[in-house]
Amino acid sequence: MRLADLARAVGGRLDGDPDVEVVRVSAPDDAGPGAVVVVSDARMLARLEAVAAAVILAPDGPPTRLPAIRIANLRLALALALRALGPPAPPPSGIHATCVLGARVRVGTDVSLGPYVVVGDGVEIGDRAAVGAHTVLEDGVRIAADAVLHPRVTVRHGCVAGARVVLQSGTVIGSDGFGYAQDAGRRHVLIPQVGVVVLEDDVEIGANAAVDRATLGVTRIGRGTKLDNYVHIGHNVQIGEDVAMAAGCRIAGSARIGNRVLMGGMTGVADHVTVGDDAVVLGGSEVTRDIPPGAVVAGRPARPRMEERRRDAAARRVPGLLREVADLRRRVARLERTP
Amino acid sequence: MRLADLARAVGGRLDGDPDVEVVRVSAPDDAGPGAVVVVSDARMLARLEAVAAAVILAPDGPPTRLPAIRIANLRLALALALRALGPPAPPPSGIHATCVLGARVRVGTDVSLGPYVVVGDGVEIGDRAAVGAHTVLEDGVRIAADAVLHPRVTVRHGCVAGARVVLQSGTVIGSDGFGYAQDAGRRHVLIPQVGVVVLEDDVEIGANAAVDRATLGVTRIGRGTKLDNYVHIGHNVQIGEDVAMAAGCRIAGSARIGNRVLMGGMTGVADHVTVGDDAVVLGGSEVTRDIPPGAVVAGRPARPRMEERRRDAAARRVPGLLREVADLRRRVARLERTP
Amino acid sequence: MRLADLARAVGGRLDGDPDVEVVRVSAPDDAGPGAVVVVSDARMLARLEAVAAAVILAPDGPPTRLPAIRIANLRLALALALRALGPPAPPPSGIHATCVLGARVRVGTDVSLGPYVVVGDGVEIGDRAAVGAHTVLEDGVRIAADAVLHPRVTVRHGCVAGARVVLQSGTVIGSDGFGYAQDAGRRHVLIPQVGVVVLEDDVEIGANAAVDRATLGVTRIGRGTKLDNYVHIGHNVQIGEDVAMAAGCRIAGSARIGNRVLMGGMTGVADHVTVGDDAVVLGGSEVTRDIPPGAVVAGRPARPRMEERRRDAAARRVPGLLREVADLRRRVARLERTP
Repeated sequence: MRLADLARAVGGRLDGDPDVEVVRVSAPDDAGPGAVVVVSDARMLARLEAVAAAVILAPDGPPTRLPAIRIANLRLALALALRALGPPAPPPSGIHATCVLGARVRVGTDVSLGPYVVVGDGVEIGDRAAVGAHTVLEDGVRIAADAVLHPRVTVRHGCVAGARVVLQSGTVIGSDGFGYAQDAGRRHVLIPQVGVVVLEDDVEIGANAAVDRATLGVTRIGRGTKLDNYVHIGHNVQIGEDVAMAAGCRIAGSARIGNRVLMGGMTGVADHVTVGDDAVVLGGSEVTRDIPPGAVVAGRPARPRMEERRRDAAARRVPGLLREVADLRRRVARLERTP
Repeated sequence: MRLADLARAVGGRLDGDPDVEVVRVSAPDDAGPGAVVVVSDARMLARLEAVAAAVILAPDGPPTRLPAIRIANLRLALALALRALGPPAPPPSGIHATCVLGARVRVGTDVSLGPYVVVGDGVEIGDRAAVGAHTVLEDGVRIAADAVLHPRVTVRHGCVAGARVVLQSGTVIGSDGFGYAQDAGRRHVLIPQVGVVVLEDDVEIGANAAVDRATLGVTRIGRGTKLDNYVHIGHNVQIGEDVAMAAGCRIAGSARIGNRVLMGGMTGVADHVTVGDDAVVLGGSEVTRDIPPGAVVAGRPARPRMEERRRDAAARRVPGLLREVADLRRRVARLERTP
Repeated sequence: MRLADLARAVGGRLDGDPDVEVVRVSAPDDAGPGAVVVVSDARMLARLEAVAAAVILAPDGPPTRLPAIRIANLRLALALALRALGPPAPPPSGIHATCVLGARVRVGTDVSLGPYVVVGDGVEIGDRAAVGAHTVLEDGVRIAADAVLHPRVTVRHGCVAGARVVLQSGTVIGSDGFGYAQDAGRRHVLIPQVGVVVLEDDVEIGANAAVDRATLGVTRIGRGTKLDNYVHIGHNVQIGEDVAMAAGCRIAGSARIGNRVLMGGMTGVADHVTVGDDAVVLGGSEVTRDIPPGAVVAGRPARPRMEERRRDAAARRVPGLLREVADLRRRVARLERTP
């Protein structure tokens, strides 16, 4: 691809020879002929000038004798350059001979179903969707156009995935939620979970995640939301749009997560709690109470980040405080003894 | 179903027309003709009166002109009503043509084995058990009557699941525990894990969980115990009866958990620790020492809940304390200077 | 096996009849004819003398009338005795008739591929490797000699596993990392992940773990490293040799973990952080900053263990401090009022 075309694809300003040919995006360590490198650290530039074909760097970044694309959002540029230069080949379309298909299955055009895919009764699969080997779609599942299900995914009965949804290996959609009543003998009696899961368009979920179906109604994950590996979503949870949760988050039953919420890894949210739009929850937090929109919280239990920092700084001073109070106690006693 | 029959099924008192026909339990938002709704919040009653066929509510709940079932344990009523009205259709019995069966397999009556189920040598499967697509039962596994294994479960060699056990997708029973010795060169030398896992009757385990086999002997999960998604049970762990653990709990090797223990999500229990009968461990705790029977603990490390609260409340007052001690220091110094 | 032969196999000193026949290693509770028991607690010895054939115990352990092997590293002795007496039968070699093999697949000698294994184009599988039922190896994967992949593993395209690597059920190698840019509308734009994962020789990974491929380049796990169930390794992470991580650890993107690091369960490491060689991170910690080589850290955020203990001990004294300062305040006020 000509560098000028790449500049257009990523939306950056071309700075240098438009006709340089670039063939791949590479890490700085791995640059070579045809490589374009996103330069976030100016110190790597000197070495790159000897090997790379071109660079992508910030508008106010250092000058370079390499042809360059200048753009402010380097992370977005990386995403767009990788898409332009390295689009993964789609799996060949077609239904592998080993697939087991139920009754009344409706499959769109150019769909790919890999080896040993099992599809239940009444399932609908949209155009160009790709379903990897060993994935199981139970009865009544609907998968919209351009969705990608990696090998070894399970979508349980009646659940719905929107357009362009991506589910990675090992993920389970529509597992039965952890709903139990206790009887008079304190035994746990299962509450049958008869709701479903709806994943709206552009939801992407990592490996080995689990989203429980609702007890009644719908567990919903909003458009454009991205969940990392091992995210657990309990039954009846409602998640807004464009949310991002890093690996290992656990959202307990009936919690509500607003739009554009960002959560660091291994964060827990207690059941029935609401996290407001645009809130940021730092990694490792435990959210036990409602969080207002736009708040930035941290800690266990989660508190406003500034309060958490103040508490942490104060805690560091407690050993000194203990010594100081012991000193004051002696001095006050001496004063009291003074006639 | 007549409302009178439903009242009998849930064990509640009928209040109104016994002949009203109910066909499903619904969420309040989703009520309609034939719907019965469990009313935990009286404010929803007015709206429901316009749409629902009947309600289930507390004996001391508000009056209503809808036919009603009155019962104290609303959660148990929900479980029983869902069972009465919405029993999930069992999968058709039979062994799918694509199953791979080993030698000396014994299969009971009315068993269902889904597509691509792989069954090792000497496996026994009890009457009416249902095994979902792609599930693997290694050599010597025994699954008792009425057990339900969802698609994509692995039960490794020699492990045992009792009657009515439920295992959800992605769960692994009998993985090799994390047992290593260190040799003189500080390399990790695997300790072969030659024990098994026994899941007693009525154990239910969520999606993507893992229960490690014992090094020697048995990792045991007691009758009626329920484990949510992502629960990790280390090798040699002994878990009592009627325990409930929410998502993401991690029980390290050789820990002992008593009967009727309740654990909130993402709780860790260190190796060789004992948690006494009827203890309650709040979510996000890290149990590093033995917990006596009946205790309620929280925090990292876990402490009695009241102590944890006192510590938390005290911690909040440290910044004020720092200011106050600074003030006292000035005043004591002034007193000391006073002739 | 003669006890003298077992003593040689574990590297211990024989103490008693060399010709005693031992057939299995057993737990103390489960000893019987032919059983050899590793005795870590001298109190169990009296009972064992009535039932076991032999014992393994410390050089300075109590005397016993049973034939014994004396050795200092009892844990290593357990590992070696189990290997000597109970080597698991390897699965029969051969490619099951139901395997789906892509083009240009190269398979070594004595390889075992179980039922429904799916192998993509250009995959290489080394001698004596064993791949369990339902495991998926995508295009271009390389598995070296003597590797063992349990049932239901996924290795995604282009990833590499070294000699003797063990991957347990449900584990995913080469999942796409959680890499997103935000566009001007605050929507998450996927950064395609085009790197791979390299697992060096002797890496062993538990059940339901996930190792993300690099964005560019390689996510690397060093020789001899052992990861327990549910360990999450983010994209671009570099892990050294002989590391051990207990269940549920989460290593965020681009973190670097040195050689011989030990991590307790459910520990989080933030992105781009470095943990030095030989560091020890206690369970449940959250590592948010670089950890120097050899350090022992604990807490959230992780601090040197001694500092963490001091803080914890000081925190316990805050309620008393509050009372004491209140008392001092009264006494100082009284002194100030004193003419």
